Amino acid sequence: MPGNVTLSIDAMGGDNAPEMVIDGIAAVRKQLTDTRFLLFGDIAQLDYLVSKAGISDIVTLSHTADYVSNDEKPGVALRNGRNSSMRLAIDAVGDGKAAGIVSAGNTGALMAMAKFVLKTLPGIDRPAIASYFPTIRGEVVMLDLGANLACDADNLVQFAVMGEVFARNMLNIKKPTIGILNVGAEEAKGNQFVREAAIVLQTANLPIQFHGFVEGHDIGKGTVDVIVTDGFTGNITLKTIEGTAKLFGSLLKETFSATVRGKLGYLVAKPALEVFKMRMDPRVYNGAMFVGLNGICVKSHGGTDSLGFANAIQVAHDLITNSFNDSIRSDCAQLVKALEEPNELLT
Amino acid sequence: MPGNVTLSIDAMGGDNAPEMVIDGIAAVRKQLTDTRFLLFGDIAQLDYLVSKAGISDIVTLSHTADYVSNDEKPGVALRNGRNSSMRLAIDAVGDGKAAGIVSAGNTGALMAMAKFVLKTLPGIDRPAIASYFPTIRGEVVMLDLGANLACDADNLVQFAVMGEVFARNMLNIKKPTIGILNVGAEEAKGNQFVREAAIVLQTANLPIQFHGFVEGHDIGKGTVDVIVTDGFTGNITLKTIEGTAKLFGSLLKETFSATVRGKLGYLVAKPALEVFKMRMDPRVYNGAMFVGLNGICVKSHGGTDSLGFANAIQVAHDLITNSFNDSIRSDCAQLVKALEEPNELLT
Repeated sequence: MPGNVTLSIDAMGGDNAPEMVIDGIAAVRKQLTDTRFLLFGDIAQLDYLVSKAGISDIVTLSHTADYVSNDEKPGVALRNGRNSSMRLAIDAVGDGKAAGIVSAGNTGALMAMAKFVLKTLPGIDRPAIASYFPTIRGEVVMLDLGANLACDADNLVQFAVMGEVFARNMLNIKKPTIGILNVGAEEAKGNQFVREAAIVLQTANLPIQFHGFVEGHDIGKGTVDVIVTDGFTGNITLKTIEGTAKLFGSLLKETFSATVRGKLGYLVAKPALEVFKMRMDPRVYNGAMFVGLNGICVKSHGGTDSLGFANAIQVAHDLITNSFNDSIRSDCAQLVKALEEPNELLT
Repeated sequence: MPGNVTLSIDAMGGDNAPEMVIDGIAAVRKQLTDTRFLLFGDIAQLDYLVSKAGISDIVTLSHTADYVSNDEKPGVALRNGRNSSMRLAIDAVGDGKAAGIVSAGNTGALMAMAKFVLKTLPGIDRPAIASYFPTIRGEVVMLDLGANLACDADNLVQFAVMGEVFARNMLNIKKPTIGILNVGAEEAKGNQFVREAAIVLQTANLPIQFHGFVEGHDIGKGTVDVIVTDGFTGNITLKTIEGTAKLFGSLLKETFSATVRGKLGYLVAKPALEVFKMRMDPRVYNGAMFVGLNGICVKSHGGTDSLGFANAIQVAHDLITNSFNDSIRSDCAQLVKALEEPNELLT
């Protein structure tokens, strides 16, 4: 029933807000019959859109004229955006009025505010941005995708624990395998941080299936279920995947339209190609999770439409109902205990 | 005429050596009528293959039973591999008997030996691995792809100069634009090294078209002609592109074979799709250049076939006849001069 789960929504974040936010809620309401929404934003616009979309019964509006723009620096947003739709939506989670927040707004500002208001879970030094992608075998979770440009070994180990919980709770993989992204699979490869993190994951007494180092091509291959990396490499890798998929799609389109036979072949194969397109549709994978915070926080892509935003809402909902943060809490307690045992290889 | 260009070849490097090496030379001899080859390797095998391929007239054989294996560590190869086919082939360049060397062997060992024997060009602190990829607009040069895991601002600036020379001399781009790979396009983004390098490229009096920061998706988009990054990020990005292309190809194949209409469409569009496949063929882009050394050094992919090896030979040949290293030398002299002028932003 509506009310079991309460989600807080930044109604003004994203290029197509607030329309796509409202349409996204309308699109997802049939699947999420247990969910209520707290909306923060310009009430004049929202009131009209909410009643037009017929979702007044599951929505509570809170007015604010202020919002965080896309080019605002995180520090400035944190200082000056205390009455912004983004901040008030996060505050609702901090105050216990909602279990999670979804925003398609400025990523850096959202991370800064969420960290400040919600704080990290016990055992986690820094939250990370996580998402998952299609592979030849299924799906792979990857983190950090840009929250922390430089990460030490402790950060990477904590990301591994959180990624493992995500793959287990959200992708239903029983014993997820974990890899650290590196320039080679051999133990001696890479910088000191990845090498130290690998030693911890290999030797500490953790209930984790550590595969070892993986390389760039292992992402699409599906070699492991979880890939751990620093935010600099992760962000560039994520965008490289998106760019390569776009390049491939664009060259394929060119190929089909270059000749009469190509055009004809496209028409014949069209139903199959539509399935292919859907499988590669980034909107299905929309919704980057901010993991490691005291509260669920999902960032929808800034340029997303209502379908993408609906997916981000679904992800936030599932993280809450699957008790994602409780699992991280209990796994981190195990991690802390495991690291208290002496490890010769690290001293 | 044969003899204008002399290339030194590690005949024993690569999974399919020495057969694919010999076949590669045979495949490329018609295009490269000015070239002679010094081959280093096991003469018992080579003698037979060379006469079978009918290339005895353009090849000189030097026997060695020793070769560097794929899993040999660079330091070990450097100490113990003094009589290996790889090392003797590099020595031939160091001794002035050849203008360049091509090997499909162990990358780390090749870089360590080439650095030790050939030394870097004046003004270059560290050599880099460079290659180029297809984009929506044409081609993009990227470096470093794995020679230096951590790079400071000076390294990145030197890579920019070398990449610019490559794009100008080898891809015939008149005024190549240069970008530094980062997590965002704004000036304040990224770590101190990319920010410092950007300031130097923006403000020093260099004849270079510096675009600014670029992101992962700009690689396939073709936003700039040259992308500069550290070897850790570059190596992972390169392999991510390869992996994503493979994933895309595999899902596409699955799509076509899943339904009767898909299969039929594939048959109709086949000629067009073959062109597409050729355009994405990694063998055409085979040959990573080791740039910044006193001598041309091209690394062919370890698993390549004769077509890929022939391409690597072609690249080495073109780098020599286009006076690639002379251009780097003169541009580095300009760089050194430009950096001697005081730069307020860096002090």
